[in-house]
Amino acid sequence: MAELSRRRLLGAGAAAVGGAAAGWGAGLLTGGVRADAAPVAVVPFHGPHQAGVATPPPAHTTFVGLDLRPGVDRDAVVRLLRVWTDDAARLTAGRAALADTEPDLATVPAALTVTVGFGPGVFAATGRGDRRPPWLAPLPPFGVDRLESRWSDGDLLLQVGADDPVTVAHSLRVLLKGARSAATVRWTQRGFRRARGSEPDGTTMRNLMGQVDGTVNPRAGTADFDALVWIADGSWLAGGTSVVIRRTRLDLDGWDELDRPGREIVMGRRLSDGAPLTGDAEHDEPDFAARGVGGLTVIAPNSHIALARSADPGQRFHRRSFNYDEAPSGEEVSDSGLIFVSYQADPVAQFVPVQQRLSDADLFNTWSTPIGSAVFAIPPGAREGEYLGQALLAA
Amino acid sequence: MAELSRRRLLGAGAAAVGGAAAGWGAGLLTGGVRADAAPVAVVPFHGPHQAGVATPPPAHTTFVGLDLRPGVDRDAVVRLLRVWTDDAARLTAGRAALADTEPDLATVPAALTVTVGFGPGVFAATGRGDRRPPWLAPLPPFGVDRLESRWSDGDLLLQVGADDPVTVAHSLRVLLKGARSAATVRWTQRGFRRARGSEPDGTTMRNLMGQVDGTVNPRAGTADFDALVWIADGSWLAGGTSVVIRRTRLDLDGWDELDRPGREIVMGRRLSDGAPLTGDAEHDEPDFAARGVGGLTVIAPNSHIALARSADPGQRFHRRSFNYDEAPSGEEVSDSGLIFVSYQADPVAQFVPVQQRLSDADLFNTWSTPIGSAVFAIPPGAREGEYLGQALLAA
Repeated sequence: MAELSRRRLLGAGAAAVGGAAAGWGAGLLTGGVRADAAPVAVVPFHGPHQAGVATPPPAHTTFVGLDLRPGVDRDAVVRLLRVWTDDAARLTAGRAALADTEPDLATVPAALTVTVGFGPGVFAATGRGDRRPPWLAPLPPFGVDRLESRWSDGDLLLQVGADDPVTVAHSLRVLLKGARSAATVRWTQRGFRRARGSEPDGTTMRNLMGQVDGTVNPRAGTADFDALVWIADGSWLAGGTSVVIRRTRLDLDGWDELDRPGREIVMGRRLSDGAPLTGDAEHDEPDFAARGVGGLTVIAPNSHIALARSADPGQRFHRRSFNYDEAPSGEEVSDSGLIFVSYQADPVAQFVPVQQRLSDADLFNTWSTPIGSAVFAIPPGAREGEYLGQALLAA
Repeated sequence: MAELSRRRLLGAGAAAVGGAAAGWGAGLLTGGVRADAAPVAVVPFHGPHQAGVATPPPAHTTFVGLDLRPGVDRDAVVRLLRVWTDDAARLTAGRAALADTEPDLATVPAALTVTVGFGPGVFAATGRGDRRPPWLAPLPPFGVDRLESRWSDGDLLLQVGADDPVTVAHSLRVLLKGARSAATVRWTQRGFRRARGSEPDGTTMRNLMGQVDGTVNPRAGTADFDALVWIADGSWLAGGTSVVIRRTRLDLDGWDELDRPGREIVMGRRLSDGAPLTGDAEHDEPDFAARGVGGLTVIAPNSHIALARSADPGQRFHRRSFNYDEAPSGEEVSDSGLIFVSYQADPVAQFVPVQQRLSDADLFNTWSTPIGSAVFAIPPGAREGEYLGQALLAA
């Protein structure tokens, strides 16, 4: 993020992408933010950015990491991406895919988005190693990590989100069938939030610990967001971004042993409304210098809120996380956590320093453990007639 | 179903339960059918029947089979049922449970229902073996079965449904924590349908094969439904019912190899709208005698629709099934199927003969395989101040 100056973050970014936006209609600038929350809502597939990044998070999103089969080359990857692009364009519009064997399930788009990402393996398999972004690699190990390979890495990412779980299941199956000859499923992570309409749009989610989670997030459609998220370096990735997916197990049983004041100290926020302990409302600026009885700061310096914050405005990213809750086994009563998801132009510059601070000292580490980690490059959106990744893979 | 005469099925049942209904308000007669599809919708918990049976199926339902811990006796089971009753009454009203450690997640009831069932083990553990209904046992084996113990049987059933997946996750955790000292989780099955609002209320669901599934179903609130579903024998189970839960794996890959006309022959219904092959609309009566070109019946005698139908109106039940779609492994691109769920006053009389016919000859067996099976008695609903199962367990 060395190049991403404070000036760009605070306004000039708007001019930088304004030109592109004019060509696509301002409504598409943020990657297809839907104005309509109805289940027939359609998020446009084509555009300068892939949908599913700036798009308001839907109730359900499944993330699938795939491995390319041995021997798959550039031609095979291009074939796969052509199929995925065509399938996604149809399904997101509420139409059956070309080889859709269950076309009757394709009629409820429910704000469906399909987002495709590339892991390091795509560059190796397609002879494009020289165009691999330098940050596209596993994140450096953090002390708090307990990573399992069954939740980590992968050559390709398929992210399928919608407000209707049947739509997600059907779309995912269509897309995975299209990938069968070129790739196998490495991991699947099923995430959810509140159902569409359960809360006013724009409500910050609560995770399964009940915490308001994701308050400080750049707002889609602003120059700040664009500068933080979209790559604008003139490369094949311009208009794209990166995604970091960290499966984070939450120890709900352990958290239960902590009383409410204790939990608020750990987070630095009130549980009831997510306000910082020095404020009155969720979006109030925390006052890290304010002191209470005994002279200690009201917000503990090793609270989650304090360590997640940086004086460097470049150490920010767009969070778009989902809960997970799998069937418990044995004596557990839940296998729950957060599929932490962040998008940023450069994960090494923007995400890693924050994660390093949290890993080193966050009080919350006692109850949260990263068990999976993956990074993907998210190519720019496709225009009509293009396929996803064309700027990288065209001969 | 010997006692359940045609006369009762065709009308007299209304009088039989009318008296009870008067005391509860007609709105509760069907077990709490909500008039409101909004996410703040509340399905009443108290009433003569447990909610979650006649209640319109929500987008998400999780079924959990539990085993009682060794040594658990009547007192311990009563304690558990008191806790579950109190928790369920609060959570379904959008209020936090008494020992709710995440009360901030309890604010969106989203038509939450909690339904409790008893397996054979409850009767043994509580010294109530003499009150165990004769049909409460594993179903007889069917030739088509490939049952796995990890999806079968259990001492207790917890059925938690809502239109919001966070509500389901939170409520389930509260309830399972309350059960920890008395029981362990044996299996968990997570089911889903279309999101609330995706389709008009009352639309027959499609399963993940795209079939309209559940057309012939008694309509909640009718005398026909009441006579088929609610037990009215004067026993402790009066006002209760039974549930059969059959996890049925659907071979979507194999089904894909069949063309659309072939699929319609297997089912006996059109895929587009679920109409019988002899009819024009979903709810048209099929004409099993109608013959087409070549003199064969239009609806094959071993089609699913033909075998599921009986001349005996007592061989019917209330279906309330859900899709499942778990993470695939290896070369699969989906691990999908149907959590078949039926409620009936007597599963041996009403369900078993139908399942036997289907097992023996249904063309659809090639693509559908029961891999789990469980039967539970569903005690009647609790009045204010009562606990679920009180009529069985009170000293």
